[in-house]
Amino acid sequence: MSITHIEHIGIAVKNLQDAIPFYENILGFKCYNIEEVKDQKVKTAFFMVGQTKIELLESTDPEGPIGKFIEKKGEGIHHIAFAVKDIENQLKSMEEKGVTLIDKTPRKGAEGLDIAFLHPKSTIGILTELCENKNK
Amino acid sequence: MSITHIEHIGIAVKNLQDAIPFYENILGFKCYNIEEVKDQKVKTAFFMVGQTKIELLESTDPEGPIGKFIEKKGEGIHHIAFAVKDIENQLKSMEEKGVTLIDKTPRKGAEGLDIAFLHPKSTIGILTELCENKNK
Repeated sequence: MSITHIEHIGIAVKNLQDAIPFYENILGFKCYNIEEVKDQKVKTAFFMVGQTKIELLESTDPEGPIGKFIEKKGEGIHHIAFAVKDIENQLKSMEEKGVTLIDKTPRKGAEGLDIAFLHPKSTIGILTELCENKNK
Repeated sequence: MSITHIEHIGIAVKNLQDAIPFYENILGFKCYNIEEVKDQKVKTAFFMVGQTKIELLESTDPEGPIGKFIEKKGEGIHHIAFAVKDIENQLKSMEEKGVTLIDKTPRKGAEGLDIAFLHPKSTIGILTELCENKNK
């Protein structure tokens, strides 16, 4: 397996305007990008913490995945994303080992990454994402 | 603020024996340490992923914090821990900014780190830990 590091941690928040000041003023991180990901029905804010991004997720639609998550579980960590090389082969290899994939082939996520989600029923309860940055 | 990176992500699991094979065989990490932290009533297993540790937490007592967490929420991410310098001053500074501290002064955690928890009511729903490795 070729996971190199934790690419990001996705955190569901009710709204970015209330959450960003905590991450900036209390934890001392700098928000370097805000981006809407329309097909996920979210607006995201990014902070860099060492190798790993914190990705705050505000729902733009109560019926979207983050809207439903917050309604059910409240604000908190939504998913963890690992940086991999050769994401297509990683997905194939995981499926062969019995992992249930949400995305059988990668799609485009925030910041232009190729991403795919694994089903939490195969990952001991944690929604898990694989990401590859093919632009670098 | 002097957070340098995400020191670890704490993940509550029902038992280490079922969880470790997923992290080793599917994600490809290597468990390099298993340790009991008696005052937290947990047995922990550690994996290194880039700069950040994954810390699996198995409860050794249903009345301990991880036992209660799993009963209420099931397996999943329990807390996030940031590596800081000068933890005592960081805690003081956070308290002055209105953050509710669970630990007003650091105590010893797994792997000999000085640790302190912030209350999730001050951290937008995420149990947050500060850690300092004073041994290096």
